[in-house]
Amino acid sequence: MASPEIEALTQALARLPGLGPRSARRAVLHLIKKREVTLAPLLRALEQVNDRLATCGTCGNVDTTDPCAICADPRRDARLLCVVEEVADLWALERSRLFPGRFHVLGGRLSALEGVRPEDLAIDRLVSRIAAGGVDEVVLAMNATLEGQTTAHYIADRLENYPIRLTQLAHGLPVGGELDYLDEGTLAQALRARRPVG
Amino acid sequence: MASPEIEALTQALARLPGLGPRSARRAVLHLIKKREVTLAPLLRALEQVNDRLATCGTCGNVDTTDPCAICADPRRDARLLCVVEEVADLWALERSRLFPGRFHVLGGRLSALEGVRPEDLAIDRLVSRIAAGGVDEVVLAMNATLEGQTTAHYIADRLENYPIRLTQLAHGLPVGGELDYLDEGTLAQALRARRPVG
Repeated sequence: MASPEIEALTQALARLPGLGPRSARRAVLHLIKKREVTLAPLLRALEQVNDRLATCGTCGNVDTTDPCAICADPRRDARLLCVVEEVADLWALERSRLFPGRFHVLGGRLSALEGVRPEDLAIDRLVSRIAAGGVDEVVLAMNATLEGQTTAHYIADRLENYPIRLTQLAHGLPVGGELDYLDEGTLAQALRARRPVG
Repeated sequence: MASPEIEALTQALARLPGLGPRSARRAVLHLIKKREVTLAPLLRALEQVNDRLATCGTCGNVDTTDPCAICADPRRDARLLCVVEEVADLWALERSRLFPGRFHVLGGRLSALEGVRPEDLAIDRLVSRIAAGGVDEVVLAMNATLEGQTTAHYIADRLENYPIRLTQLAHGLPVGGELDYLDEGTLAQALRARRPVG
């Protein structure tokens, strides 16, 4: 039996998406076999993230500062707001380097199945941001899934009385496709061809 | 773009076997989304492993003590020595809880392709252990691969003049294995090593 320290590390790694108990064990062996080049950098990186990362109180992004670098950047267009389900989606859009505005992370999607209701997402906070003024266009960048589109419709309803342009990412995304898995080229096209809602 | 801290963590995770850049990013998001239940335990586990783990100077196992718990355990049969390629193999055998002896980890296998020579493995140290006496049987538990079997043959040659019994793991059908799905090599071995029923 491996030592308790190794078992604990194996279990902690096995909880990551994409790793099961067996691959976690392989990963642990890899880590302890070449400690200086694998374990040490991973440990330092985790410490840094743990010590420094915070959730942006404005948009919900995860960064080392609050407000995050995007919200604090005066070159980012504050009149253009992109609503995404998760931080992963924000990062995916940032990798395309094509979106000049700011973000709003919902923290999930409406789901009857998983019992996710509007009050479980950062929707009220989105409405407050819009009500505060200064935003001309809201891009609804939900996933092209049933739940993503349900969430987009719900938000469109909530925002319909505000003097803003509501747009959504161009479809042409594969049905059932999730932003985080898409290549930058497709994302860039979808962003460029965004169109008005309804 | 995600913060440098997050990029560094993504890269460190992407170096683990079984995780690529994309799955590493998913893992990072998972870690920062539920920090208390995922990141914190992983960080603690890594610290413990980093602080406490050492390689056993006797057998090559990785443990918190040197000699390791197996080498130091008086209930383990010192006359029975099992030679394995990697620490992972030692752990696999330990999980079976069926081997009462001690181990010797080679740290790899002979490979012309990868340029691994006898002096790159802990073979001289194995011969010294046998020469020191006290071992009656050496179980060669190499992988059933060409390189594993080449390594086993090489070790058998090196040990042939010592008064020990040399054995190897039986080859044959894995438990639960279906004939139809097995490769011919395994089937041939299983057929050659067939035993009387009952």
